[in-house]
Amino acid sequence: MSTSLYDLTIPIFIRNLESLDAVLSKGEAFASEKGIDPSELLEARLYEDMAPLISQIQRVSDSAKGTAVRLGGVENVVMADEEKTFADLHARIAKTIAFLKTVPRDAIDGKEEAQVTLQTPRQTFDFTGLSFVQTFVLPNFYFHMTTAYGLLRMKGVPLGKLDYLGGI
Amino acid sequence: MSTSLYDLTIPIFIRNLESLDAVLSKGEAFASEKGIDPSELLEARLYEDMAPLISQIQRVSDSAKGTAVRLGGVENVVMADEEKTFADLHARIAKTIAFLKTVPRDAIDGKEEAQVTLQTPRQTFDFTGLSFVQTFVLPNFYFHMTTAYGLLRMKGVPLGKLDYLGGI
Repeated sequence: MSTSLYDLTIPIFIRNLESLDAVLSKGEAFASEKGIDPSELLEARLYEDMAPLISQIQRVSDSAKGTAVRLGGVENVVMADEEKTFADLHARIAKTIAFLKTVPRDAIDGKEEAQVTLQTPRQTFDFTGLSFVQTFVLPNFYFHMTTAYGLLRMKGVPLGKLDYLGGI
Repeated sequence: MSTSLYDLTIPIFIRNLESLDAVLSKGEAFASEKGIDPSELLEARLYEDMAPLISQIQRVSDSAKGTAVRLGGVENVVMADEEKTFADLHARIAKTIAFLKTVPRDAIDGKEEAQVTLQTPRQTFDFTGLSFVQTFVLPNFYFHMTTAYGLLRMKGVPLGKLDYLGGI
């Protein structure tokens, strides 16, 4: 009995992107009901130098796509970070899910010992496939999921943990 | 090549608790340097009905312990949620790490198809061992890790993503 890297990543990303889409819809409905300008939610930040809600959604998308690309060797579908509205964000989520659904199981499974390199503007990080998923992919993916949820909660959107967890 | 449930949980919790401990220390140092009452950070919330920083740390601890107990069948070490200071929170994290270090690998490994039941005040959730880790344990653990980090960021503590990621 063991666990496969595919099962830990691609279907989990799809599941969470679906939850995030529903969470965003609750934010959108709240803004509409309360007569709040949608940009108040879309541009919300926890702190002045932190990324706003729109960027948190883009990073959830990139984090999922980047796993397929870096671990699975799948060709990236570049998304230009031009979202400005709730409708744009729903479309970004839908495109990300459609891309993830094209990733074959065997591109990811068995890659525990593959070499994975992550280059950031400041540093290069070397991982195995397993350590990449354990210590970067999952904490980073949920970081942006949680921050998006927290920003909407902070603005008063009626959400609970089960919304974040996709109803489990 | 495959992945073990133990490697996805217990050592990952320990690693993240160590990061969280360092993140808390940066919050404590910031409060001291700026002459801010520590309770302003410890009681910080994203929204009036969300749990404060102290509770977020307690939930990180519980989430890790609960995995060992529910999946590993290990006897719980009850922790009473009486923390009030940074020192108390550091002690809670240290006790949680010490407990996790006693969990044997073979208590967790191979439990992908075990039945796991989670009872909340309102609902009962049934999982397999694998779905418990995939859809509850990891998203929930990182939810509280991220919210703790976000609360300190919101209060101006100089933290970056690498602090959250334990330097990867």
